[in-house]
Amino acid sequence: MTLWVITAMIVAMPRWDPRAKDRLRDAALELYLEHGYDNVTVAQITERAGLTRRTFSRYFTDKRDVLFAGSEQLPAALADAVLQADDGLSPFGALLTALVDIGGLLAGRVPHAAQRRAVIKASPELQERERTKFAAVTDALAGALRQRGAAESGAKLLAHVGVAIFQTAFERWTDQPQHADFAACVRETTTELAFSLGAVDLPAFSGRVRS
Amino acid sequence: MTLWVITAMIVAMPRWDPRAKDRLRDAALELYLEHGYDNVTVAQITERAGLTRRTFSRYFTDKRDVLFAGSEQLPAALADAVLQADDGLSPFGALLTALVDIGGLLAGRVPHAAQRRAVIKASPELQERERTKFAAVTDALAGALRQRGAAESGAKLLAHVGVAIFQTAFERWTDQPQHADFAACVRETTTELAFSLGAVDLPAFSGRVRS
Repeated sequence: MTLWVITAMIVAMPRWDPRAKDRLRDAALELYLEHGYDNVTVAQITERAGLTRRTFSRYFTDKRDVLFAGSEQLPAALADAVLQADDGLSPFGALLTALVDIGGLLAGRVPHAAQRRAVIKASPELQERERTKFAAVTDALAGALRQRGAAESGAKLLAHVGVAIFQTAFERWTDQPQHADFAACVRETTTELAFSLGAVDLPAFSGRVRS
Repeated sequence: MTLWVITAMIVAMPRWDPRAKDRLRDAALELYLEHGYDNVTVAQITERAGLTRRTFSRYFTDKRDVLFAGSEQLPAALADAVLQADDGLSPFGALLTALVDIGGLLAGRVPHAAQRRAVIKASPELQERERTKFAAVTDALAGALRQRGAAESGAKLLAHVGVAIFQTAFERWTDQPQHADFAACVRETTTELAFSLGAVDLPAFSGRVRS
């Protein structure tokens, strides 16, 4: 096949544009930020992207899915990473390793994390969806930590704290102009938290404690 | 007024039974555990409690409210407690003091915390409501921590971790047969978490880290 024929085929098949998904996502994020998520329709998204409803349906089930597509894989991916972390690590060490591994992958795949965050922050419905997502992540992480020997209630606590570290590190990563190093954000966040916890004199913190 | 008149008035006004609220809550929890939350009606609750729909409406807006009545006060109560904690405390120290103070009050007022937890665990709708409640608590705590000088993103992180400690300590408290001391549960949970975080060699946890 000559180059000309291949070029003609590509031009004739715009619906297989490999960037269609990105164009739809870009258009959706722009519109959500301009008009508010509740006020945007799929028709407006496809119009701005210059694509059809049929193309939209190939990549997303609905306008909410534009913001959450793929996130259903996050719980299992994180749990697997916890289970596969080095045997010598403590449960919390395995958790941090998993956050860095999966977060690093995710960070590379979310080109518009800051806009996405702004859209979600403005919508109670989306906030609820985001909480549901992280609740599933927390449950999966707690299950994996139990398999690594953490106690029932301690596993849930560590999973909650891991998710808090992950969310904070991810926000800090998206706020950086250079998006340098997700692992460094996780380390910085964890160090800060360990310092806060370590600075409290626990046996003495009983000034106003009722017992 | 003679004692006889007062007694006659109380007997004539059963709708002011001060235990009506408790009886309704007990009946509701029993029914939720027996039949599942989704399958229980307000009519069944009032029937089992031997009270009227009108009495129910005096205390609760609907069957979900039986599980969440009063919780709308929790965010402000915790935020106030953070702000009023001793000036010399670090933000995290103030947070722990608030958790112990308010949690201690709450623990005394939740006679059926373990049943309530079992009911919520069995219903996705109630789990979502519980998450929404704790999200409001997290926001309020983060706001109070910022007022005490914590940085924007650090305040949110500490608030998330504080809520995780609170939930874990509360579960442990309800699981104890004696319900002894909520403050001790918070201390134990925090110590355990500080130990987990401290045991990780942060600069070294980079075996599988992508940078």
